[in-house]
Amino acid sequence: MDWKRIIRVVPEFKGVTFIDITTLMKDGPAFCAALNALAEPYKAENIDLVIGPEARGFAVGAPLAYILGVGFVPVRKPGKLPAETIRHEYSLEYGKDMLEVHKDAIAPGQRVLIADDLLATGGTTQATVRLIEELGGQVAGIAFLIELTFLKGRDRLSGYPIRSLVQY
Amino acid sequence: MDWKRIIRVVPEFKGVTFIDITTLMKDGPAFCAALNALAEPYKAENIDLVIGPEARGFAVGAPLAYILGVGFVPVRKPGKLPAETIRHEYSLEYGKDMLEVHKDAIAPGQRVLIADDLLATGGTTQATVRLIEELGGQVAGIAFLIELTFLKGRDRLSGYPIRSLVQY
Repeated sequence: MDWKRIIRVVPEFKGVTFIDITTLMKDGPAFCAALNALAEPYKAENIDLVIGPEARGFAVGAPLAYILGVGFVPVRKPGKLPAETIRHEYSLEYGKDMLEVHKDAIAPGQRVLIADDLLATGGTTQATVRLIEELGGQVAGIAFLIELTFLKGRDRLSGYPIRSLVQY
Repeated sequence: MDWKRIIRVVPEFKGVTFIDITTLMKDGPAFCAALNALAEPYKAENIDLVIGPEARGFAVGAPLAYILGVGFVPVRKPGKLPAETIRHEYSLEYGKDMLEVHKDAIAPGQRVLIADDLLATGGTTQATVRLIEELGGQVAGIAFLIELTFLKGRDRLSGYPIRSLVQY
């Protein structure tokens, strides 16, 4: 499928060129095809859980979990998860941010697939990797709808198996 | 399925008893069964789109859209959507909040299913209904995993067809 024909590029939003997947998501056949294509390679990977960071990671990760027949774990900004959590701080271009996951979200040894809409510099994903590993989980894969290759997020995540559907 | 055995009740979080669906979501068979049960009645309803409010609405709405083979539209807090939007303000117990949707997210006449994790007082859902109707869409259904019946959210949404999987 010609994904780039369906995905909207907003020339300027918050100071950057913004890849807008809402035009892909609202197109039923395209959204379902994208999710199926993203899930396909993981059907043979014995995935136990899909994990996705707030908020767009929920819209990609939860359907992937459904397709793979496994559970979904949300990673959130601080103060949103009601039970006991662990946190990891990560750097943004300007400043810092924090992500949390429930302590009982992942059992030691579980094979976890990280899912998100977009790989940019990889900071959010790196923090998610650390949360998974701190709980004893194993990062079995990392899947993105979009990858901004010029931001070299893969370098920051080297050693982890990354797949993306569309590259810019 | 005995949903209440799988869903965690946190006695006190931010001043309320909190129904925590993360324990349901991380359980693959239970999460998939819940999504299938929630989607089932809408398979005969000619749904064109599923819409879900940020952030947990993405984790319910996006898989429902996949199951129904239709597109998914995110409703977000202000300043998150990159293209032209419409907004609607709504009241919280203390103060106000605002929700946005892309102007081109819904075409006039489309039959839209609203999906979210939890029906409490119904404020978020009511704002979502207004956004859909302002764009000329038709609210074909409203689906929740959880309904807190004692908060009487249905009264605020009277006239709209509501379904929930588990009631407290």
